[in-house]
Amino acid sequence: MKGKWNIDADHLMSRIETLAGFSDAPKPAVTRVLYTEQDLAARTWIKALFDSSGMTVTEDALGNTFARLEGDDPEAPAVATGSHIDAIPHSGRYDGTVGVLGAIEAVRAIQAAGLRLRRAIEIVLFTAEEPTRYGIGCLGSRAMSGILTPDMIRALRDEDDGTVEDARLRCGFTGPLESVRLERGQYHGFIELHIEQGPRLETTGTMIGNVTAIAAPATLHVTVSGEGGHAGAVLMRERHDALVAGAELAQAVEAAARQSGASDTVATVGIFDIHPRAVNSIPDRVSLTVDVRDIDGQRRDDTADRIRAAATDIGARRGVSIEVSTLNTDPPATCGPVVRDAIAQAAAELGHSCTDLVSRAYHDTLFMAEICPVGMIFVPCRRGVSHRPDEYSSPGQIKAGVEVLASTLVKLASQ
Amino acid sequence: MKGKWNIDADHLMSRIETLAGFSDAPKPAVTRVLYTEQDLAARTWIKALFDSSGMTVTEDALGNTFARLEGDDPEAPAVATGSHIDAIPHSGRYDGTVGVLGAIEAVRAIQAAGLRLRRAIEIVLFTAEEPTRYGIGCLGSRAMSGILTPDMIRALRDEDDGTVEDARLRCGFTGPLESVRLERGQYHGFIELHIEQGPRLETTGTMIGNVTAIAAPATLHVTVSGEGGHAGAVLMRERHDALVAGAELAQAVEAAARQSGASDTVATVGIFDIHPRAVNSIPDRVSLTVDVRDIDGQRRDDTADRIRAAATDIGARRGVSIEVSTLNTDPPATCGPVVRDAIAQAAAELGHSCTDLVSRAYHDTLFMAEICPVGMIFVPCRRGVSHRPDEYSSPGQIKAGVEVLASTLVKLASQ
Repeated sequence: MKGKWNIDADHLMSRIETLAGFSDAPKPAVTRVLYTEQDLAARTWIKALFDSSGMTVTEDALGNTFARLEGDDPEAPAVATGSHIDAIPHSGRYDGTVGVLGAIEAVRAIQAAGLRLRRAIEIVLFTAEEPTRYGIGCLGSRAMSGILTPDMIRALRDEDDGTVEDARLRCGFTGPLESVRLERGQYHGFIELHIEQGPRLETTGTMIGNVTAIAAPATLHVTVSGEGGHAGAVLMRERHDALVAGAELAQAVEAAARQSGASDTVATVGIFDIHPRAVNSIPDRVSLTVDVRDIDGQRRDDTADRIRAAATDIGARRGVSIEVSTLNTDPPATCGPVVRDAIAQAAAELGHSCTDLVSRAYHDTLFMAEICPVGMIFVPCRRGVSHRPDEYSSPGQIKAGVEVLASTLVKLASQ
Repeated sequence: MKGKWNIDADHLMSRIETLAGFSDAPKPAVTRVLYTEQDLAARTWIKALFDSSGMTVTEDALGNTFARLEGDDPEAPAVATGSHIDAIPHSGRYDGTVGVLGAIEAVRAIQAAGLRLRRAIEIVLFTAEEPTRYGIGCLGSRAMSGILTPDMIRALRDEDDGTVEDARLRCGFTGPLESVRLERGQYHGFIELHIEQGPRLETTGTMIGNVTAIAAPATLHVTVSGEGGHAGAVLMRERHDALVAGAELAQAVEAAARQSGASDTVATVGIFDIHPRAVNSIPDRVSLTVDVRDIDGQRRDDTADRIRAAATDIGARRGVSIEVSTLNTDPPATCGPVVRDAIAQAAAELGHSCTDLVSRAYHDTLFMAEICPVGMIFVPCRRGVSHRPDEYSSPGQIKAGVEVLASTLVKLASQ
């Protein structure tokens, strides 16, 4: 099977186009949030694709969906691949979806080639890799790994104070949360195909990225409580303006990342909500999130500590209360040699240039690493842009990724 | 009529309580936004109060409402009083409403005393003193003054891109916008009763504030456009984060006000909206408002200029585009001696302590000053708090204000 996959790139691109239509944002932007009508409609459509591929479909209590193509040895742990289809507000069409629709195309190509494999192949559609709704990323895979316990899931709330529990039950995912966790060793290996979300493959003219490690994310939630009042009547020296304090903290977040001295340290304020939000009213409350990442867990924690210290300092100096809570702080993951080697070999056989790299974005693979050896196949994306409507990977780039995925699945499923 | 008004403070407080119930926020907070169902319901209730006072009610094309008690000389310009009933999100129950319901109580007391006056008295219920919906304060009185022209009104948009024009027509205010403007000299004088929204009366133990001048407001709208992207994948040195740039500008707004050297200079960022607003996405856009005020128009303009200069500097340094537009920049107003003298005399006759002061908050009176001599009667409010649910003036304080208003109306209407 060297370089011989018959991948139908046009068909795959048209499926990516169809999936992008399940969206709450006007094209070309995509917004697809967990457990919304568009999310459920997209899942229905993908389950129909699994069905028509002759795969057996099951769903767990959170809506994580598993499509299984049986192998010759039903006792041997399966090889798994997959990704997510939820999309943050006003983002693009390739993040996550390439790994799901690409996996379906890879399985089709394996079937079309008439190959019989020892191990089953499973495609996993993960529930909510993005933290949009409940503030925590990788809800599905985090629960599978056991890092997120049923009690922790039950405590999660969205902005309308709705629970995961209510939302999943309303969507028909009614099993016990305790059944979501997977056994360690459940899979022989897990591989995720994904766009790079960075510029390195494009700038070096490389077709395939073979991920060696995934950066460790930490997410903080910060509430600044000051004193409101009339914007005309309260003198500057009398103010305890929550917005200006929050703004100073946003600057401190940027500074804390830069102070790490390593370019791999990044920190972002992605949400910044103010109250009461009126032209002529001094804000009395700000809620903001801080997302800190690094490939080095210790350096990441040191950066978060600098942000906490800045919050304490700003709060004291400005006479406002600043509460910082940690939503998650995850360990970095190292990819498994068995998977990395298979990817490298597959790329070489297919004649695709390939380089090792680190993933600074995190993925469901970070949590699948708790279950089994993992690897990721990256394909280039234009200018490294992601989480934006102009996110783009070419049909040729996506096709190359699917070819490498197909070969890797065959190699691992034959072991 | 020296000290003899029979003001029913309990009845007035219970009307303030009733009006606070027309709200889109849970008690004790009040939210009442222009042309919403609650605004219209509150207007209907107040018009019924006007009717039962035997006053003739008319409405103009924006919903400014005029209730007239005839005088002996129909040719003589009337004496007007009034205020507004719209309330910014999550605010209190006294701002504006005391001037409307207090005027109704003052007219009732004048009628109960069996007085015949030369001039008619009009109570004006102004449409939207707060800038909540269309970003511009004093919509009704600004249009009456001619400072806001019909073309400018037609250009106003709310957040959903809806026009004033559509909204007012839907509410049944169907006259031509050209008819809203009042003639200069239409009124003999205008007096607004209002809570102070500052702490000076309370801290000096004074019952009545006699306003000498009203601070000049300027409102800027700022759009920061940067570059979005994945919060994990884009290195700090590659970023053009709109939020951090907007945060730096919010700090510069604070600094610009402090640099004026005068404690009367205040500047506030009251709205700060970010896009796309996701935990793991670098914000690509921030929209914010800046509210600058001073009793000295030149010093106010200098402060706004320092903010514009900071925006230019931050934009250039951070590689983001910052557009600053001026929503309004109004002249300060000086109160008319004829009205100020009547207020001072009334307070003295009634035995209420009275002091001259400047209003740093602006009011519909600022624009009525374009039409006729104006004055304002302030009553203390607890700790100077306003635009918050804990805004409070006592029944005794409000009663004193209504007594001074009644006497002032009688003095001016007798001239």
